[in-house]
Amino acid sequence: MQHNGLLHHLIQSLCCLPGVGPKSAQRMAFYLLQRDRNGAEQLARTLLDAAEKIGHCRICRTLSEDEVCGICASQARDHSVLCVVENPSDVWVVDQAGFFKGIFFVLNGRLSPLDGIGPEELGIEILEKRLAAGEIQEIVLATNSTVEGEATAHFIGELSRKHGVRATRIAHGVPMGGELEFIDSGTLSHAFNGRKEF
Amino acid sequence: MQHNGLLHHLIQSLCCLPGVGPKSAQRMAFYLLQRDRNGAEQLARTLLDAAEKIGHCRICRTLSEDEVCGICASQARDHSVLCVVENPSDVWVVDQAGFFKGIFFVLNGRLSPLDGIGPEELGIEILEKRLAAGEIQEIVLATNSTVEGEATAHFIGELSRKHGVRATRIAHGVPMGGELEFIDSGTLSHAFNGRKEF
Repeated sequence: MQHNGLLHHLIQSLCCLPGVGPKSAQRMAFYLLQRDRNGAEQLARTLLDAAEKIGHCRICRTLSEDEVCGICASQARDHSVLCVVENPSDVWVVDQAGFFKGIFFVLNGRLSPLDGIGPEELGIEILEKRLAAGEIQEIVLATNSTVEGEATAHFIGELSRKHGVRATRIAHGVPMGGELEFIDSGTLSHAFNGRKEF
Repeated sequence: MQHNGLLHHLIQSLCCLPGVGPKSAQRMAFYLLQRDRNGAEQLARTLLDAAEKIGHCRICRTLSEDEVCGICASQARDHSVLCVVENPSDVWVVDQAGFFKGIFFVLNGRLSPLDGIGPEELGIEILEKRLAAGEIQEIVLATNSTVEGEATAHFIGELSRKHGVRATRIAHGVPMGGELEFIDSGTLSHAFNGRKEF
C-alpha cells in the first residue's frame, strides 16, 4: 500500500497535530475513512473556517473571531482586575474554572532575549497604555513558573508599580490533592518558603 | 471565553478523532491556531480530498484512491496467495511489515449475525468468484482472533475447501519478546495447545 499516495499524505498531515505520532495518525486516518467521513468533512471545514476567521482580540490579544473578544466586551466582568497570562489557552483554562471575574491580557509568549522575544513582541506597549489609563487597579501575574515566566512577571510587576497599580502573583506550591512524595523538590521548597500561619 | 463559538466548535470537531478527548482537542486547537495555521489548512484540505477521492478497490475492497489498488494492480505480487483480513488497516500493517508478497481481500467487517452482518456485507460473493476462477492456490485467514473473527475464518475456510483451495490460519501464541507472566490465559493455553517439536 506504499502505492496509496493520498492515504499516506493524510496520515502525514495528521502528524502535525500535537501528541499525534505515525501510529495514532494511521489509526485516525483509517477510522475517519472507514467510519466517519461526515465527521472528517466537518472537521476539515471547521479547521479552514477557524484558520481564516480567528484572529486576536484588539484589546487583550487572546484568540477571538471578533475584533474585541467576548470577555473584553462583557459588562458583567470586573474591568479593574487584569490577569496577565502567556497564552490564549491559559485564558480558556482560568475562565472555564469560573472563579475569576476580571479581564485578561495575553502576552502570546514570554520574555526570552535569546530567542529575540522582547517587550514589543509581547504587546507590553498596549498593556502600558491601559495601565496609564487608570481603570485597572490590580494586575494578577499568572505567567508560568518557569525562569522566563518569572522574569516576565517581574518585568510587568515593575511596570505596574511605576504606574501606581497593585501587582500580585498567583501562589505556587503543592497542588490540591497532591501527595508530598510525588512533588518535585523545586515545588516543595517553594511551598515551604511560602508557608503561612495556620 | 464561552463567547468564542468558532473556537468551541473547532474543539468539538477535533473530538471526532479516535482517542481524542476534550482536553487533547483543546490543546490541538490552540496549538494549530497559535503555531501552525499552515498545517491546519493543509490538514483540512487533505481531509476533504481524501474523504472525496478515497473509495474501495473493486477487486480487494481495501481503501484506495484508484478503482484498482496498487497491490491488486502490481505484477510483482504473488497473485496465487490471498490473505483475508477484516480491515484496510490490517492490509497496511501486514504490507508495511514487508514479508508477505501475496495479495489481499478485505472483508470490511466480520460475521456478526446479531448486528445483521452476514456474508453479503463482507463481499463473500466477490471472494467466491475469485476462488472459482482458479488463480488462487492458498487462502491465508488473518481475521482477528475474537469469537466473530474465528467464526468468519471458519466460514471462509469451508468455502475454500468447497472450491478445492488450500486454507491456512495465521499462528496465535505468545508474541515475540513477550514474557509469560504478562500473557493472558487464553493466549497461553492457545500457545501450549499449538506447541511444535523443537
